[in-house]
Amino acid sequence: MSLGAVAERLGISAERMERMLGRVVRSSDWPAPRLLRFDKAVSGIEAGTVVFDRDEIVYGYPKIRRAMMLEPAIRRHFSDGVLVEEKMNGHNVRVANVGGETVALTRGGFICPYSTEVARDQISPEIFADHPEIVLCGEMVGPKNPYVPKEVYPTESMDFYLFDVSRKGAREMEGSPATHALAEEYGMRSVRLFGEFGIEGAAAEIEEIIKDLGAQGREGVVIKDPANLLSPIKYTSSESNCRDLEFAFRYYNDYGLDFFFSRVVREGFQAVEWSEAEDEFQERCLRLGRSMLSSMRETVEAKMAGEPIVQEVEILVRDLQTAKDFEEHLRRMGVRAAFDPPRVSPGGHLVKIKRLVMSTNDKTESVIEGHLW
Amino acid sequence: MSLGAVAERLGISAERMERMLGRVVRSSDWPAPRLLRFDKAVSGIEAGTVVFDRDEIVYGYPKIRRAMMLEPAIRRHFSDGVLVEEKMNGHNVRVANVGGETVALTRGGFICPYSTEVARDQISPEIFADHPEIVLCGEMVGPKNPYVPKEVYPTESMDFYLFDVSRKGAREMEGSPATHALAEEYGMRSVRLFGEFGIEGAAAEIEEIIKDLGAQGREGVVIKDPANLLSPIKYTSSESNCRDLEFAFRYYNDYGLDFFFSRVVREGFQAVEWSEAEDEFQERCLRLGRSMLSSMRETVEAKMAGEPIVQEVEILVRDLQTAKDFEEHLRRMGVRAAFDPPRVSPGGHLVKIKRLVMSTNDKTESVIEGHLW
Repeated sequence: MSLGAVAERLGISAERMERMLGRVVRSSDWPAPRLLRFDKAVSGIEAGTVVFDRDEIVYGYPKIRRAMMLEPAIRRHFSDGVLVEEKMNGHNVRVANVGGETVALTRGGFICPYSTEVARDQISPEIFADHPEIVLCGEMVGPKNPYVPKEVYPTESMDFYLFDVSRKGAREMEGSPATHALAEEYGMRSVRLFGEFGIEGAAAEIEEIIKDLGAQGREGVVIKDPANLLSPIKYTSSESNCRDLEFAFRYYNDYGLDFFFSRVVREGFQAVEWSEAEDEFQERCLRLGRSMLSSMRETVEAKMAGEPIVQEVEILVRDLQTAKDFEEHLRRMGVRAAFDPPRVSPGGHLVKIKRLVMSTNDKTESVIEGHLW
Repeated sequence: MSLGAVAERLGISAERMERMLGRVVRSSDWPAPRLLRFDKAVSGIEAGTVVFDRDEIVYGYPKIRRAMMLEPAIRRHFSDGVLVEEKMNGHNVRVANVGGETVALTRGGFICPYSTEVARDQISPEIFADHPEIVLCGEMVGPKNPYVPKEVYPTESMDFYLFDVSRKGAREMEGSPATHALAEEYGMRSVRLFGEFGIEGAAAEIEEIIKDLGAQGREGVVIKDPANLLSPIKYTSSESNCRDLEFAFRYYNDYGLDFFFSRVVREGFQAVEWSEAEDEFQERCLRLGRSMLSSMRETVEAKMAGEPIVQEVEILVRDLQTAKDFEEHLRRMGVRAAFDPPRVSPGGHLVKIKRLVMSTNDKTESVIEGHLW
């Protein structure tokens, strides 16, 4: 790797690059291949940007900002209509071929061994033979997603859905039509495209789409510029906001306070924008209140019954080595987790993972023992 | 004032006291009398502690910790039964006589001109003639309380309720029996004493008291050691938690996130401890959800209708100078507020105060104009 050449391509001085090494930019030897990773956003370089040995850069996936009120946000943000795609609820990966091997990078720029196995399994190597520079941006979803396990998608394990295509060394995405065409050509799943709408009618159309997705337990939409010139924005269903809260309040003391707050505020704006009738509004209030209290109640009751508070997820690996590597990956991420022995299953090996939720565990224990807040 | 003598009485070195001046310890010349104020807790000295000119110290009112679950907290915390008093919802003041004048100190150690007028009006000067060293700790409550306006108490303006008695230079309180005896002797209001309960039955008794207080829109209780040796603890009603949330979500972007979070968590523990039936639990969830969304909805709707988001309170002053002084007091606290012209009213002059809630105002405006979060 030539730091000078990399710095030049990134648009920063070699001296600045040198100073960032070991601080903002971390190097990693495991899992292969070797890489440099931008831990934080600097000088216009997205966090999660990765540089591989032959000076190949995979830029971090850009943050998509959120509309709090659809109608004014669409009017302010777009000019000639919008494309609406499903925003699936899993984890964002960038899949690229490096030195002949396919790897899946997490949002933060780590190679995730489990996501990599799934990517190698589901993405035809042909695509990289034909397009060695391509970067496939997509969502890993399903009940065997250990980061965000969700039952609502048509898979029993974890599937990759393409939502954007980029190239090594390029910051920009190639746009929705190119993405879906590529997925079709190479037999890949891609996120659902709901269609193109004019600026005027879009908010009303999206309201219907969001309500429908919400009823199915799905997350929401990403709204894109058909000309692929403006940044996309996202918008989510009430059911998804509430399900996030339900999950977070199960581990109430281990989540950031802004996680809770931002979701409540989204509900407030959505209720106003959709000018709900009183019974719908009542239902929304109940859904919101329940999402917080019912899971927290279960946690406290479990602890009173003597159970430790753990977060249980499961992965389905084809190769047992992947489970071992994933364990090491989590350890390096600073996650404390216990892996159960693998069980043979159709499609590979199931491994249950119990993640310790220390703060909630200790706080709950302390309160039920009579300690003060 | 002799810094050396004051430091000695506070139990710190003169050199340390010297170093704290202008940083942790602030001096104030307005309103009279002159004082030093501890802005933060240091070396075992409560924040809000005040030292007057003749080296008289009024210690800060100690923070009362909160029980999240009554039964285990009472069992762990107390030994020979408990006294239960009402915790009223207003602002905590310490009233003392300094150089012949009665002054009311806020929790933070500021002389509040408005609270001082009310204290001079409602507290017989005799008590200070008989006990020049006495410090009367109490709650200022009522609809004309500009900090915490509440309609639920039997007053149309702002009343002082005694809940503890201390002395200048003393850190300890004199206990509940002495407090109520003093209130009776000098014809002062004091907070309601519900009675004394054994450790075993206390949680159940307090549950009933709290439910009853909640139904009346009142806040909760302070649980004290009958022997006045152990620190008191507090516990509040669900209705009070939710009313706090309702108020805070009206100004959702101007409140600390822990304000929201702590109140939701209290609801979770209370629901478990009182092992509610499903319909009661449902009601609690709805109450919680509504408290957040309904006031936020009103704020957004008001802003969409073009109204600025302000927080309106009103004071009732006997002397117009008090209103002018209170305006200066708020200005010194860093509060931006506009005072309407006073209107004559039975009992004095009513002055409406409009406090700007900048962050919520700007954030709401920005969202309804289509800016992203």
